[in-house]
Amino acid sequence: MKNLVILGSTGSIGANTLQLVADFPDRFRVLGLTAGGNNDRLFAQIRRFRPRVVALADEAAADRLRRQCRPRRDSRQAHVEILSGMEGLVRVATLNEADTVVSAIVGSAGLVPTLEAIRARKTIALANKEPLVMAGSLIREEARRQGSVILPVDSEHSAIFQSMSGQRPGDVRRLILTASGGPLLDLPLAKRRTIKPAQALKHPTWQMGTKITIDSATLMNKGLEVIEARWLFDIPSERIDVVIHRQSIVHSMVEYQDSSVIAQMGLPDMRGPLAYALNYPERMPLGLPSLDLTRVKTLTFEAPNLKRFPCLGYAYEALKAGGTLPAVLNAANEVAVRGFLQGRIGFDDIARLIRRTMDGHVPLPLSGLEDVLEADRWAREKTLKMIESKA
Amino acid sequence: MKNLVILGSTGSIGANTLQLVADFPDRFRVLGLTAGGNNDRLFAQIRRFRPRVVALADEAAADRLRRQCRPRRDSRQAHVEILSGMEGLVRVATLNEADTVVSAIVGSAGLVPTLEAIRARKTIALANKEPLVMAGSLIREEARRQGSVILPVDSEHSAIFQSMSGQRPGDVRRLILTASGGPLLDLPLAKRRTIKPAQALKHPTWQMGTKITIDSATLMNKGLEVIEARWLFDIPSERIDVVIHRQSIVHSMVEYQDSSVIAQMGLPDMRGPLAYALNYPERMPLGLPSLDLTRVKTLTFEAPNLKRFPCLGYAYEALKAGGTLPAVLNAANEVAVRGFLQGRIGFDDIARLIRRTMDGHVPLPLSGLEDVLEADRWAREKTLKMIESKA
Repeated sequence: MKNLVILGSTGSIGANTLQLVADFPDRFRVLGLTAGGNNDRLFAQIRRFRPRVVALADEAAADRLRRQCRPRRDSRQAHVEILSGMEGLVRVATLNEADTVVSAIVGSAGLVPTLEAIRARKTIALANKEPLVMAGSLIREEARRQGSVILPVDSEHSAIFQSMSGQRPGDVRRLILTASGGPLLDLPLAKRRTIKPAQALKHPTWQMGTKITIDSATLMNKGLEVIEARWLFDIPSERIDVVIHRQSIVHSMVEYQDSSVIAQMGLPDMRGPLAYALNYPERMPLGLPSLDLTRVKTLTFEAPNLKRFPCLGYAYEALKAGGTLPAVLNAANEVAVRGFLQGRIGFDDIARLIRRTMDGHVPLPLSGLEDVLEADRWAREKTLKMIESKA
Repeated sequence: MKNLVILGSTGSIGANTLQLVADFPDRFRVLGLTAGGNNDRLFAQIRRFRPRVVALADEAAADRLRRQCRPRRDSRQAHVEILSGMEGLVRVATLNEADTVVSAIVGSAGLVPTLEAIRARKTIALANKEPLVMAGSLIREEARRQGSVILPVDSEHSAIFQSMSGQRPGDVRRLILTASGGPLLDLPLAKRRTIKPAQALKHPTWQMGTKITIDSATLMNKGLEVIEARWLFDIPSERIDVVIHRQSIVHSMVEYQDSSVIAQMGLPDMRGPLAYALNYPERMPLGLPSLDLTRVKTLTFEAPNLKRFPCLGYAYEALKAGGTLPAVLNAANEVAVRGFLQGRIGFDDIARLIRRTMDGHVPLPLSGLEDVLEADRWAREKTLKMIESKA
C-alpha cells in the first residue's frame, strides 16, 4: 500500500491519479491533496478519497473549504485538516507518512513544494515540467544528495525511462524525443500569422490543457522536454535529439553505444506513464487497449524545421547557456502563451517575445532557488510589458 | 576477458564472432572452434586466433587439418589439438575454461553439442535455431536445472531479450516478432509457383545463408522463430504474434500488461545482437552506423497472410501440438528447402511436402533426445521419399 500526496489534484494529471487510486484501492491510499482555488472539485475529491490533509494556495478559497468541510453531527465524514498558502502546500508535500508525491501543479507554482518534497526524501512522480526546466541543476543536485528518486510522468520521459530500464547509463549514446508536431505542423506560415487560439488548440493526438497544447503548436513543449530530459537523465543537450513523429505511437527512444535503439510505444493515454511512475517497477493491468500496429499501419519520422519552429531552438540555446536563462525562457513563454490565448498577440508573436526577453537577459549562474525565482519574475514582467506596449 | 568456444566457426555467425574478437582483443579469447569440413577457412582461423582445441565433424577433413597444422621446426605456431566427430564437437563445447559457447552450427547438427554445453553450465550465445525448435522443452528444462544462461543471437530474439531487460517477466503480455516478409511477399501466386531459387534468394534487407533466405521467403523462418521464442522466454504460442514489417528496422517488440510496448530497433546488422550476447549486460562501441529514422522516414506494419504463407501456420500448429511435431516440421522443411534449391521441386511444394509429412506423423511426447532424433530421421526420410517419387 502506497501513501500518495497529489500536488495539483484538480488538474488533468491529478484526476487521472485519483482514477488509478479508485481502480486499485488495495495499492494506493490518498494522504494529502493540494489545489489552487478550484474548491468544488476538490471538495468532491475530499469526500470520495478522504485525505488526511489538504492545502489550497488561495487563502480565501481555503476558508470557504473549511466551512464546507466542517463535520456535521449526523455525518460520518472523516476529519480533514485544511491548510493554505505556500506553507500549507509545503506541509502537504512533505508529510511524514507520504511515500510518493505526485507533482502535478501546472506551471512554476510547483517548483517550491516539489523541491521541498525532494528534501523530505520522497519519491517524486513528476508531471510538472517547471521544476526541472527552471532549476534543473538545483533539483538534480538535491535529489542526488537526499537519495530521492524522480520518476517521470510525461509520456516522452516515461518512454525514455522505460527504454533505459535494465541498461547501464554509461552505454547511452543519445536520447531521441518524439514530437507529434502539434496542430499547426503543415500550416503555411502566412496562415499561421493570423491563426486564432481555437484553431491552435486542436491537437491531433493528445487531449491536454490549453497552455501545453499551444506549447505543442510552437514546439516549445518539446524544447521544455529537452531541458527536462537533460536533468532527469543527466545527458548533455548535444546528445538529445527531437524527431517529428505525427502518430504519437513511439513515445521516445534511447540509442546505445552499440547503435541499438530501444523505444517505448503505445496508444496515447496518460494513464500508462502515470501508473508506471506510481507503481514502479511493477506494471499494472490498466485495461487500456493494446497497440495494434497492423491497424496503425504506418509510422513516420521527420526532422523538425527550426526555421518554422524557432522555440525549439531557443530551448536548446537556453539549456546550453544554462544558469537563469531556462527560467527566463519558460517565464517568457508562459506569459506570451497567455497573451495569445487572450487574443492580445498573434501566434508568431509568442516566439518573437520569447526571443526578445531572452536577448534582454544576462544569464547568471544558479546559486539557489532565489536566483531562479528572481529571473522568473523579471522575465514575466518584461514580457508582459512588451505585450502591453503592443496592445 | 571471456574465453569463447565457437561451434560452427566457418559460417556467417562464426566469422562475425571472430571479427568481434579481432576488434576487441582485450575482451575475448578464442579457446575452441568447431566446423563441419571446410578446413581451408578453419586453417586460416586457427593461424590467426590460435585456439587451443578444434574439432571437425568430418573425420577425413580432421586428418587433413592435422597434417596441415603439424608444427614445423622453424614456425612459432602454437600447438592446436584437433579432434573429430560428434565426440570431438562435444569435447570442445564443454571445455572447462570456456565461459561462453557460441552455438552457430547450421541445422540439427548443433543440437547435441549445444545441449552438452548447457549440461556443462556454459553461457550459450544461441544462433542455431534447431536446438530450441526440435527440443525446446528438453533444452529449457536442462538450462533451468543447470543454471545455464541462454542468450539469443537471432536479431528478433535479441530484440525481445533487450526489450525485456529490467522488466518483470510476469508483466509480459505478448511478444511481437517482426518479419520482413522476405523476397516474395508481393509476388502473385501464379508467378510464385514457377519461381527459380535465384529469385527466391534475393532477400530485401538481410544478407544470410541460402537455407534461411528460402525460409524467409516461405515465412517458415518466422515460424521457427516463434517456436524458439516460446522456449527462450517461456511464453505460450497464443501470446506470440508475428507482424510483417518490411523495413527490418524494428527487430521485435514486447507488450506488457499495462499496454506499454517496448521495441528494439536498428539498422539490420548481425554484429549488434551478436555482440550484445557475447558481452551481456555491457554494450560495446561497435562502430556501427546510427539509425536515423528521419532518413528511413516510414515504418510499415501488416498482418501476415497465412493463406499465402501456410508454413507460418504450420509452425504454430506444431508448437501447439508439441512433442515430436516441431522436430518433424523442422526436418521436413530442411529436406524440402534443399530439394527446392537443387531444382527438384517447386517453391510451393515446400509447404505441401511439410504439410504431408506432418499429416503422416503421430506426435509423441519428448522423454529424451532420442525421441527428437528419431522423429528427425523419420521426417527426413519421409520427405525425401516424396521428393524422389516426384522426380
